[in-house]
Amino acid sequence: MFSGTNLPKVGTYNVNVVLSAIQASEDISRVEIAQRTGLTAQTVSVIVRRLLEQGIIQESGPLPSAGGKPRTALRVNPSAAYAVGIHFDPLEVSIVVVDMLGRELSRSRNEIPAGREPEVLIAEAAKVAQELLHELDVPIERVLGVGAACPGPIDQDEGQVISLPRNDHWTDVPIKHLLQECTGLDVIVDNDANAAAIGERWSGHGRDCSDFAFLYLGTGIGGAMFLSNHIYRGVSLNAGELGHVVVEPNGAPCYCGGRGCLEAMCTTASIVRDVRAELALGRASSLTALYKANPELVDHTAVCLAAAAHDGVARRVIDRAADYIADCAVMIANVLDVELIVLGGKGVIHVADIYLQRVCEALQTRPLARRVHTVRAAISAMASSGAALGAATLVLHTAFAPDTASLTSFDV
Amino acid sequence: MFSGTNLPKVGTYNVNVVLSAIQASEDISRVEIAQRTGLTAQTVSVIVRRLLEQGIIQESGPLPSAGGKPRTALRVNPSAAYAVGIHFDPLEVSIVVVDMLGRELSRSRNEIPAGREPEVLIAEAAKVAQELLHELDVPIERVLGVGAACPGPIDQDEGQVISLPRNDHWTDVPIKHLLQECTGLDVIVDNDANAAAIGERWSGHGRDCSDFAFLYLGTGIGGAMFLSNHIYRGVSLNAGELGHVVVEPNGAPCYCGGRGCLEAMCTTASIVRDVRAELALGRASSLTALYKANPELVDHTAVCLAAAAHDGVARRVIDRAADYIADCAVMIANVLDVELIVLGGKGVIHVADIYLQRVCEALQTRPLARRVHTVRAAISAMASSGAALGAATLVLHTAFAPDTASLTSFDV
Repeated sequence: MFSGTNLPKVGTYNVNVVLSAIQASEDISRVEIAQRTGLTAQTVSVIVRRLLEQGIIQESGPLPSAGGKPRTALRVNPSAAYAVGIHFDPLEVSIVVVDMLGRELSRSRNEIPAGREPEVLIAEAAKVAQELLHELDVPIERVLGVGAACPGPIDQDEGQVISLPRNDHWTDVPIKHLLQECTGLDVIVDNDANAAAIGERWSGHGRDCSDFAFLYLGTGIGGAMFLSNHIYRGVSLNAGELGHVVVEPNGAPCYCGGRGCLEAMCTTASIVRDVRAELALGRASSLTALYKANPELVDHTAVCLAAAAHDGVARRVIDRAADYIADCAVMIANVLDVELIVLGGKGVIHVADIYLQRVCEALQTRPLARRVHTVRAAISAMASSGAALGAATLVLHTAFAPDTASLTSFDV
Repeated sequence: MFSGTNLPKVGTYNVNVVLSAIQASEDISRVEIAQRTGLTAQTVSVIVRRLLEQGIIQESGPLPSAGGKPRTALRVNPSAAYAVGIHFDPLEVSIVVVDMLGRELSRSRNEIPAGREPEVLIAEAAKVAQELLHELDVPIERVLGVGAACPGPIDQDEGQVISLPRNDHWTDVPIKHLLQECTGLDVIVDNDANAAAIGERWSGHGRDCSDFAFLYLGTGIGGAMFLSNHIYRGVSLNAGELGHVVVEPNGAPCYCGGRGCLEAMCTTASIVRDVRAELALGRASSLTALYKANPELVDHTAVCLAAAAHDGVARRVIDRAADYIADCAVMIANVLDVELIVLGGKGVIHVADIYLQRVCEALQTRPLARRVHTVRAAISAMASSGAALGAATLVLHTAFAPDTASLTSFDV
C-alpha cells in the first residue's frame, strides 16, 4: 500500500538532498547546488545557512568566477561527525573509525579464536572501538554511531544475526542490543555485502552511481544491489544472494542444497581445494615444494600470489573462477542493466587484475544490450577492509543520504 | 544526482496515493483511506471531494458499521476513463479497449502479413482501435490514450521501436508519433513484458504486490521487474532481459551471441524444433500422424496440447523447458527476493499447469532464503492478450498511480 507524504518529511528530505550534492563535489557553490537539485535559490540558501551553523559543512574560500558576484565554495566538514564500523567475518573482526567523508582514520583487525562466544567477542570489539576513538581524541558527542556488518542473513529490524556461516553457535545473536549496551552508541546492523556497497557509494567507485551491483568475495560470496539510489533488499530482506547464482548446472554441491552455485565454485576455500587437488596429482607448479612440506600451507593467499606470478596450476584455477564470476556479471548486466559492477572483499586480493580483465571482457562482448550500453566493472579500493569501512559509512549514509522512502514512510 | 521536492509535486502525489488506495479495494471509507495511507482525515476528505466532483470515483452506499457514524463506501467509477492497448507481436497485432478498472471491453486480433510495412500496419491498427471505440460508444474525451507494446528494445523517450526481432524492416520506427497522428490520442510505448507486468499490477496477481517479476513467454522471452512499486528499467532502459539468463552453459547458440540462454532453450520455436527432431527419429508419439502428413503442422499449439494430454515426446520437451524456466525463477528469487513471479504470454497456453508446478516446486526447495520466505508463482490470467491489456493499463497506470520518482523529478 502506498503512503502519503507531508511537509516535515519534505523538509528533511531536501536538507539531505543539499548535503548530498555538497558531499558528491569537492567544492560547490549555492548556485550550483540549486542547478543540480532543482531546488530554489532561496531554499538552498536557508538550508546551507543551517548546515553551516551546525558545523556540518564549511566555507572553503571563493570559487574562480567568470565575472559577476563571487561564489563561495562549500564542502563537507570532515570532522563534523565520526562513525565506527565493525565487521564480524567468520574468521576475524575488523574495526575502523571514519570521519564525515568516510575516510579511514584508524583500524584494528583480530583473528577470532575458535569457539569464542558471541557475547565475549562483541564486548571485546566494543572495547577496541573505544580505544581507537580515545587514541584519535575524537569527542564522543560527534560519534554518530556504530555500524556492524556480518555475513547474512540478518534481521535488520531487530539488529540480530540470524546465523553466521561456519559458526554454528552464532544463532539469533542480538548484536545491535549488545553493542549498544557496550558502547552507549546507536548501532545499525547490515550484511557485509550491503555495507561494502554503501561504503563504495559514499567514498568509492559508486560515488556518482544511481545503480550498481557489488559482488562481495569474502569467506563466502555475497552481493548487494544499489538500485535507484537505494540498497534494494527484497521483500524479506534476502535479495542480492549472488553467491547462489548457478554458473555450472552440474557443478559442485553447495551448502544451500543446490549444485554449481558461484559460492560452491569460487570461494577461497573451493579455489584452494581445486589447486591442492591438482598438486596432489603431481602437476608441475611453483607451489609443489610448499605443498610437499605441508598441504595446509597452500592457502588462498599462496594460490593468488602464484597465479599473479603466472604459475600454470594456480592460474588455471583462478582463470576458471574469473570466468564464473564473469558469467554472474553478464547475468547482472542482462537482468539489472546497472551502470557498474564492483568486485570487492578479501577474495580479490592479489588477483584483482585477472578478475577485472575477464569480467570487463565479458561485459563488453556478451550482454544483449552491450551495443547500447556497456556495463563497467571496477575493483573496490577497500578490498581488505571494505565491509568494516562500509559498516561505518552505513551510519553516515543513514544519517545524511536523502531517502525517498522516508518521504512516504508511515508514521502514525 | 538527487533532486529536491516541492509542494505541487507533493499534492499530485497524494491525490494518486488516495486513488490507488481506492483502486486496490472493492469498497473503502474515508477513514480507512486515512489509516492505510498515513494521510490526515482532512487531506483525505479534500482529495476525495475533488475526485468525486471529477467523476473519477463514486459513492457506492453505506458500509456495514460497528456503531457510530455511518461510513460511505467509495469505489473507482469504471466508466470514468478508458484506454486503448495495442500489442505489436512479430506475428500478430492485438488491440483491446479497457475501462478504468482495467477490464477488457473489446478485443481484435490480426495476423501480420509477411513483409507488411510498419507505417501501413500502424495505420491499420489505429483504424481498428477507432472502430472498437465506436462500437462500444465510448466518448472520445474519456479515452486517456493509447498504450503500445512491442518486443524490446525500445527508445521510451522517443517512443521508437529500435528493432523488432524477426522483422528486419522494423528499425527505428517512430511508433509513438505515427499512432498519435492516426488516432489524435496521447500514446505511450513500452516493451511487451513491462506492459504485461503493469497489467498484472493493475488488475491481475500483482495487485497488492510491491515487488514481483514477470517472465513473459511470447514469440521471444522477455522479463519485467516491478520493484519497490515501480517498473525497474535500468540505467539504459534495458533491464529485465530474463530471456538471456544462461540456463545451460553449453546449450544451443542464441542470437545474442551466447549459448544456452533461456531464449535459446525455451522459446515456442525451439520447443517445436526439439519435438520435430524427436519425431524425425521415429519416437512413438500421438503427434506422429500429424508429423507424417506435414511436419509444419506440428506447431507450438499442437505440442502443448499433446504435452497436456500426456504424450511422452511432447511432455519430455515441455518438462525440460519447465525445468529451465524454474532455474530462472530460482535465480530471480535468490537475487531479487520478490514476493511473486508471474508467468505469462502466449507461450504458457495449454501448459500453464506443467510450468507452474515445476516452478513452484523449485521455489519451495531451492532458493537460499526459502525457509524465511517462499517466493510465490502464478500464471497470468491474461496469457493470450496480456501485453495488449497491459499496454492499455500502462495508460491508466501512468495517469493514476503514485510515482515516487515524480516527487523528486527535475522540472527546471
